[in-house]
Amino acid sequence: MAAEAVLAEAGYAGFTIEQVARRAGAGKPTIYRWWSGKPALLIEIYARQPLDLSGTDTGSLEGDLVAALGRLLAFWRDTPAGEAFTALLVEAQHDHAALEMLRAFLAERSFPLAELFDRAARRGELATDFDLAAGLDLVSGYVWARLLTRRLEDDSRSLSSAARLIARGCLRR
Amino acid sequence: MAAEAVLAEAGYAGFTIEQVARRAGAGKPTIYRWWSGKPALLIEIYARQPLDLSGTDTGSLEGDLVAALGRLLAFWRDTPAGEAFTALLVEAQHDHAALEMLRAFLAERSFPLAELFDRAARRGELATDFDLAAGLDLVSGYVWARLLTRRLEDDSRSLSSAARLIARGCLRR
Repeated sequence: MAAEAVLAEAGYAGFTIEQVARRAGAGKPTIYRWWSGKPALLIEIYARQPLDLSGTDTGSLEGDLVAALGRLLAFWRDTPAGEAFTALLVEAQHDHAALEMLRAFLAERSFPLAELFDRAARRGELATDFDLAAGLDLVSGYVWARLLTRRLEDDSRSLSSAARLIARGCLRR
Repeated sequence: MAAEAVLAEAGYAGFTIEQVARRAGAGKPTIYRWWSGKPALLIEIYARQPLDLSGTDTGSLEGDLVAALGRLLAFWRDTPAGEAFTALLVEAQHDHAALEMLRAFLAERSFPLAELFDRAARRGELATDFDLAAGLDLVSGYVWARLLTRRLEDDSRSLSSAARLIARGCLRR
């Protein structure tokens, strides 16, 4: 995919519809016929990368969070997804349409993490007043901060600490 | 301050050294004599805004977190600090020097939040294996995610949920 190649080579700063069109050997109008703009292309690049969070059922919310956080950081580090998501976050800061697409994308992509909390609920682990939105906000905020400060290395001590703190915050006492 | 006015009027997308120089009635070399570039200007704009987290001692970590999160979001919403910090995050994504400055800035600015956890420690609230770095990462990740999705409104229900989850994750059981 031309857009993926441009993003990989030029980073998001060099990621323009013009460059994508040139790489695809097409005109800009052809690109716009299929994608509404940069945010749509970035989301497509992201969606093409394989993120597999299955098989992370470790028997506890804390273990599941360690596994999921580790896979998500590796996914962002080892595939173009990290650069694509960074670029989408950046676009959303100055383009309202990109912000709307980011929000819709987040709502759609939160499913695997929601599933993880759902599993904890089925195990009877969660506090009765557990708030799923807060849980998702904390998990995603944590990984976003790691992405934006370029700390995607497999830092298992930090991941374990963060997972433990979040899990304890969610559990029945 | 010329830089603050440019940021307020043009947003970070229009925030250039050239515009700042023009606004200040100076040449670009004059600006560069005092600031190394956009990140340094953004940090100065941020530092000029008054953030007061004092008097948030509510007697519990959870209460202190609610107060601090609310003040931080309001600070970003109601002063140029939010736009300046957004711009610094964006700059850090394509400029390594900006990333280094962001990291140094974060280390320096985490003090008021660290103080809040320190107060909880003095009250005997914290778990013996509490990890300050994880606590700070979670708090900052949460507020960053709110900033970058433009959810800075005073949404006290969400803030309370997030503060409760973080506080419970830190407390002695």
